[in-house]
Amino acid sequence: MILSLDPETIISAVTHALNEDIGRGDITTRSTVRPGVNARGHFLAKQDMTLAGLEIADFVFTTFDPHIQIESTASDGEFVPTGKVFARVTGDAHVLLTAERTALNFLQQLSGIATVTQQYVAAIAGTAAKIVDTRKTTPGLRMLEKYAVTCGGGHNHRLGLDDGVLIKDNHIALAGGVTEAVRRAREAVGHLHKIEVEVANHDQLREALAAKADIVMLDNMTPDQVRESVAIINQHEPTERRTLTEASGGITLANVRAYAEAGVDLISIGALTHSAPSVDISFKIKTA
Amino acid sequence: MILSLDPETIISAVTHALNEDIGRGDITTRSTVRPGVNARGHFLAKQDMTLAGLEIADFVFTTFDPHIQIESTASDGEFVPTGKVFARVTGDAHVLLTAERTALNFLQQLSGIATVTQQYVAAIAGTAAKIVDTRKTTPGLRMLEKYAVTCGGGHNHRLGLDDGVLIKDNHIALAGGVTEAVRRAREAVGHLHKIEVEVANHDQLREALAAKADIVMLDNMTPDQVRESVAIINQHEPTERRTLTEASGGITLANVRAYAEAGVDLISIGALTHSAPSVDISFKIKTA
Amino acid sequence: MILSLDPETIISAVTHALNEDIGRGDITTRSTVRPGVNARGHFLAKQDMTLAGLEIADFVFTTFDPHIQIESTASDGEFVPTGKVFARVTGDAHVLLTAERTALNFLQQLSGIATVTQQYVAAIAGTAAKIVDTRKTTPGLRMLEKYAVTCGGGHNHRLGLDDGVLIKDNHIALAGGVTEAVRRAREAVGHLHKIEVEVANHDQLREALAAKADIVMLDNMTPDQVRESVAIINQHEPTERRTLTEASGGITLANVRAYAEAGVDLISIGALTHSAPSVDISFKIKTA
Amino acid sequence: MILSLDPETIISAVTHALNEDIGRGDITTRSTVRPGVNARGHFLAKQDMTLAGLEIADFVFTTFDPHIQIESTASDGEFVPTGKVFARVTGDAHVLLTAERTALNFLQQLSGIATVTQQYVAAIAGTAAKIVDTRKTTPGLRMLEKYAVTCGGGHNHRLGLDDGVLIKDNHIALAGGVTEAVRRAREAVGHLHKIEVEVANHDQLREALAAKADIVMLDNMTPDQVRESVAIINQHEPTERRTLTEASGGITLANVRAYAEAGVDLISIGALTHSAPSVDISFKIKTA
Amino acid sequence: MILSLDPETIISAVTHALNEDIGRGDITTRSTVRPGVNARGHFLAKQDMTLAGLEIADFVFTTFDPHIQIESTASDGEFVPTGKVFARVTGDAHVLLTAERTALNFLQQLSGIATVTQQYVAAIAGTAAKIVDTRKTTPGLRMLEKYAVTCGGGHNHRLGLDDGVLIKDNHIALAGGVTEAVRRAREAVGHLHKIEVEVANHDQLREALAAKADIVMLDNMTPDQVRESVAIINQHEPTERRTLTEASGGITLANVRAYAEAGVDLISIGALTHSAPSVDISFKIKTA
Amino acid sequence: MILSLDPETIISAVTHALNEDIGRGDITTRSTVRPGVNARGHFLAKQDMTLAGLEIADFVFTTFDPHIQIESTASDGEFVPTGKVFARVTGDAHVLLTAERTALNFLQQLSGIATVTQQYVAAIAGTAAKIVDTRKTTPGLRMLEKYAVTCGGGHNHRLGLDDGVLIKDNHIALAGGVTEAVRRAREAVGHLHKIEVEVANHDQLREALAAKADIVMLDNMTPDQVRESVAIINQHEPTERRTLTEASGGITLANVRAYAEAGVDLISIGALTHSAPSVDISFKIKTA
Repeated sequence: MILSLDPETIISAVTHALNEDIGRGDITTRSTVRPGVNARGHFLAKQDMTLAGLEIADFVFTTFDPHIQIESTASDGEFVPTGKVFARVTGDAHVLLTAERTALNFLQQLSGIATVTQQYVAAIAGTAAKIVDTRKTTPGLRMLEKYAVTCGGGHNHRLGLDDGVLIKDNHIALAGGVTEAVRRAREAVGHLHKIEVEVANHDQLREALAAKADIVMLDNMTPDQVRESVAIINQHEPTERRTLTEASGGITLANVRAYAEAGVDLISIGALTHSAPSVDISFKIKTA
Repeated sequence: MILSLDPETIISAVTHALNEDIGRGDITTRSTVRPGVNARGHFLAKQDMTLAGLEIADFVFTTFDPHIQIESTASDGEFVPTGKVFARVTGDAHVLLTAERTALNFLQQLSGIATVTQQYVAAIAGTAAKIVDTRKTTPGLRMLEKYAVTCGGGHNHRLGLDDGVLIKDNHIALAGGVTEAVRRAREAVGHLHKIEVEVANHDQLREALAAKADIVMLDNMTPDQVRESVAIINQHEPTERRTLTEASGGITLANVRAYAEAGVDLISIGALTHSAPSVDISFKIKTA
Repeated sequence: MILSLDPETIISAVTHALNEDIGRGDITTRSTVRPGVNARGHFLAKQDMTLAGLEIADFVFTTFDPHIQIESTASDGEFVPTGKVFARVTGDAHVLLTAERTALNFLQQLSGIATVTQQYVAAIAGTAAKIVDTRKTTPGLRMLEKYAVTCGGGHNHRLGLDDGVLIKDNHIALAGGVTEAVRRAREAVGHLHKIEVEVANHDQLREALAAKADIVMLDNMTPDQVRESVAIINQHEPTERRTLTEASGGITLANVRAYAEAGVDLISIGALTHSAPSVDISFKIKTA
Repeated sequence: MILSLDPETIISAVTHALNEDIGRGDITTRSTVRPGVNARGHFLAKQDMTLAGLEIADFVFTTFDPHIQIESTASDGEFVPTGKVFARVTGDAHVLLTAERTALNFLQQLSGIATVTQQYVAAIAGTAAKIVDTRKTTPGLRMLEKYAVTCGGGHNHRLGLDDGVLIKDNHIALAGGVTEAVRRAREAVGHLHKIEVEVANHDQLREALAAKADIVMLDNMTPDQVRESVAIINQHEPTERRTLTEASGGITLANVRAYAEAGVDLISIGALTHSAPSVDISFKIKTA
Repeated sequence: MILSLDPETIISAVTHALNEDIGRGDITTRSTVRPGVNARGHFLAKQDMTLAGLEIADFVFTTFDPHIQIESTASDGEFVPTGKVFARVTGDAHVLLTAERTALNFLQQLSGIATVTQQYVAAIAGTAAKIVDTRKTTPGLRMLEKYAVTCGGGHNHRLGLDDGVLIKDNHIALAGGVTEAVRRAREAVGHLHKIEVEVANHDQLREALAAKADIVMLDNMTPDQVRESVAIINQHEPTERRTLTEASGGITLANVRAYAEAGVDLISIGALTHSAPSVDISFKIKTA
Repeated sequence: MILSLDPETIISAVTHALNEDIGRGDITTRSTVRPGVNARGHFLAKQDMTLAGLEIADFVFTTFDPHIQIESTASDGEFVPTGKVFARVTGDAHVLLTAERTALNFLQQLSGIATVTQQYVAAIAGTAAKIVDTRKTTPGLRMLEKYAVTCGGGHNHRLGLDDGVLIKDNHIALAGGVTEAVRRAREAVGHLHKIEVEVANHDQLREALAAKADIVMLDNMTPDQVRESVAIINQHEPTERRTLTEASGGITLANVRAYAEAGVDLISIGALTHSAPSVDISFKIKTA
């Protein structure tokens, strides 16, 4: 998995989230709980889930207080069944109480993404296709959410607009066609970048192949249209370095396997990140 | 509506999101589209929705280029039916292409929250209860998401841990009971703060009333248990300044009206912010 | 004491102050004192004072060099008599010399505030009133100065404009009267906030009581006028949850007891933070 | 006056102060005053004062809203008598209400410093001495406070530790004497820096003169001791480029003229910045 | 040219450079030149050069004062002969004097890079090869220096470690060989990235071709060795999508044409950015 | 040596440079090298050089991973001959591979400056003159480059515009002459600053002496003109505190000794920082 989270990204997100929640201080905890009390808390899965974000939850507590101890019995990317306690936190009760919600917010949302991703990955098991994400992520959490996708067994598409060339319908319209758009991109971008172009039909597909696009995104096609597109490509370039294909648009858990069986290399799904519901996790605290 | 978004919060979120997406530059647009081309784009609702975040989408474009013109035919908080074009953007094609995804990410997620909130508000129409949010928000987007809740007709609970006293089960356990927890809070917090305390049953409720809590959160009770709780309170304090009640936990679109009719003042729902799916909005561009 | 200083607030203030003083480097120390010399310094009270800011002075030194050792024989909130050495610092002579002035600037100004506050608190000893501060603080040092007030035995009013509702003369004028202003505030703000309103005379006081304000600020009244105001309130609402009173304006060490004896709950004094003179503390260094 | 305030310093201080006070929003103004109302406010001197910080107060309002109009009838450095309205502010009532306290906090504290400084300057009128400030400033406000000193007719000593060589008792002790300390400094610092050294008695003074110090600080001497010191210097170096003298320590409004008449070039006073009480200024608002 | 400089990169570099130079203020200009004087300055080339950085110089002045007017008679990427005045600046004399050195520092260093790059580009005119830069750039100025390379007619290699896969000798050693390193990279990186691998001899070259590397970097080879390498590749893959070649190491103005004529696609030269001397430009000011 | 680098300056430059190079992650290393492998790297001089920046290279690695071990056999300011391994780094292979280029970029450029400076210093050995740098430094690296100058045996001129008064031709023109410019500066700047003025001929020199300038910069004079200037000064002020001289403009390794022998105190050379080529250093890694 190439996308391991670097500490700086986590720390920045965690610090921002803690500041946002705590502001000038947790007035309830400060006023009701004596300082210096030790406590223990545990995270409990209240539904089946694929875990993501445990390291971040860990950072939430230790950013507050480096003396907090965390022990976990599961890791990011693992399946956790309903009822399992997957991590325990020990330390100052003030820290546990104040940081609890921020830790849960990360853990529940990222595990939500991993859980949904895993469902798509399972649905195409045995095919050659890969599930990939999109740039339809929560503003500010791009890298964390893309990491959660990998925890669920998915792969990452572009991390940002600087990270790959993907020529879409709007670019094609403004460039004056697929051929011209691909030609311009090849001339301008560095020699290490491949060029992907979105095609809406078989005419555009043939134009993209003639222009030697490295990848074609088959936009809003049915599984049958996708199957025909793959056939066209195989006819055109039977060599090993043939153009790759990506299916995109209108793909659900119900039809994803049909797309995979149609022969595409990549299936991209925005809902992995923009609509995954949080999973349910509880955190209970008692004196240590 | 007390929560109007201040420009600084928006600018900070927008700048962060743009940097995250654009990195060292949008290599596709720069290479395929000639500079200096003017274009027009329009936002189209692809499902029924309550709008939220239009001002933020506006900031996304104008942060890039102050010459971008935006005209809208709907405002935050309004219902927008499927098929309606609710805003048009005119300006440099590079800006439209590069900023499009970030603008959509904000708009789709915030309108998703407003749309779900509005469904809950509609479900309790005619009762005296209010729908309120929680602190179960996306890390880093707290204020924007709470703003979206108000666009959907909901109200805001605490904005953060410094913004109100809410004594929960974990605090009660560590303080040694409801009575002691409320007493400590009253002694320590400023004279402008009310004190809310979570109660799990009628014994705790009576203890909270005796301790003169200003609000009680009725946690994970059925509508019937809530109704009895309200009756206990009315018996205890028939005056105008009686203790308020908040129902919390296990509340869905299906049962929310039963809670409202049970007589609570506030109904808090985490799913407004942690599990609202994005709404579907498209953005199409053509030369101006 | 609910306002304990969180490390982040201190670190930010300390770092800013050190940068401001040191700029590109302490050219005197670097040029005149050999590197690697160990030294000892001690803080000596040159007048009677109530101590505040010792933890911050500590941070000033350790931000520079984590190996600096500090031992103190007094704590924030304690009385320190003239001539007492209340802390000793051991470590690299360069660090002691360069950080000395910044540490003293914090310590002298915060102890100045604590010392003045303590005089007001002592002056009303035995009454039911509390001394509270205001928002008339030094720009940038709000939280540190409010902390110093608590070291002197005072209490904190609002920490900022977001932290409580206080309707003042200017708001009343623009809202069209006390009744309307209170009504609007109650409708708009969250259920956890109380509402305080400033009244200038008994008519406004009665209007505030009718509007069910939670607290009234009695502005620029004499002790006798305050006493009458308290009587009016007690007549109006003999219940336990009666409206609280705050005296404000024109209060000095000479007359503060008269206000306290007039029966107010809170006495707010801007001079605690805006006009407290620094206390005199020396810091002498010798080789260790 | 060499110290004019650069916009960046002001903007940074103003932004920090506004954030500190406003936090998540001014809940009183937002809830009680309708948006879109225009208002007028005026600043009124409630005591005689020398004005400082008007440009900063201006920035406070315009940082919020560039449409705010400010007209003033006095400038920084001018005397303003009790009862004079010296500035008027027109614009959105929300902006005036929310920014008022921050503007006043700057204006009252900086004018306090200018007012005290002007009293010292007046006290030595007609002598050749100059009043200078010290590094005993409020952490974070160094440049603003030093600017206020110049508004009162004073001059600035070092702006920070990098801005001049001042060898004090602690440096002398650690360097092994005045001669060695001055020698080391001359060897190490750049050719554009003069060297000032603190002396506690006439022996140290003679040592400093022999070492060719450019300035001597006469520490905690009486006016008579200062007069003798000046005589020693005049004997030693009758040339035009003789060593300058600075009197420091124990100087008050009552004795400052005696020091000036003793022939020193500079008189430094920490109390200008560390103990000047705020002046009293009111700000009243009405609808425009 | 795909690398146009975005305003944010320029503003950040310019602000940092101005702060670094100006610190607490330009004491010479403030003290010697009256405020409010208008002046004109002109930039004069004192040697033949290819211009780069004019837009940045422009930002330096206008960041200080938006009223500064700049007119130029040449653009980035153009040849400017000795003695030509290529830009004139009009505005406040203080701004011109204070910002002059920072503007010149950018302009002289970036034009130095463009000038050297242009010499390499001219030296291979008529061949199919491209001159590309490396990551051997000045820390903090990567994007500006890579922009200057394009002004001189060069092309950009990777902008950073995240912007392309380049497997070097150290990676090969740690991965256990070219074959394994390429295999791992292909498996892990996104589908939009090509894979470049450094080879030191023909054995490694053949291994890289077998592993289907997209580009090979021919490291420290003579022009003859490069020619043989190109022949090996052409034999191996006669198709249009053959592996590209990059020559690297030991390339100078004297031998660069021999490399280009040996048939490589890319020639990378660290000295473009790490050793280009500044060009000589003067800036003279007179009253307007 | 007064200019020792403070950790904050280094950390800020290092962090910025690492972020610039690494962006979202080193995709080559992450994909080709297994995590958890230990490795050793060594820095090897590939030409004779004076070392500068070793501490910074150290920070580059340890900022990434505090467990990295670095041993060096040379220090900043020392001569290192071709072929010498002067430092070894041990630790996680990922850290070594990812941080290598940033470490080298600092080390090669700063050692380049130290190496050139040392050549100038050697060229004037035995004379009384000092080699000093200028403000012609790389934007953003001023302090590091000035530190490298001291490693080569040079001295530092002003660190910035706030750090000394240097009246140049443009100031003189706008002030209306040398006499007036010096007079204004003396009146306005603090008592700790000396005043340097640029003179272009003997008339201006005499004017500067009459105005009691502390230092004169002899601009673009030949060694003979410099010798005459020094004679004029010695005639004018035979005392110990005579005006210092600085030669500036057109000075090269070939003629620097002639300037030194002409009797100047300081010789300033922009090329030390603006045109020093990088030295050649390699870094090779193998498994530990």
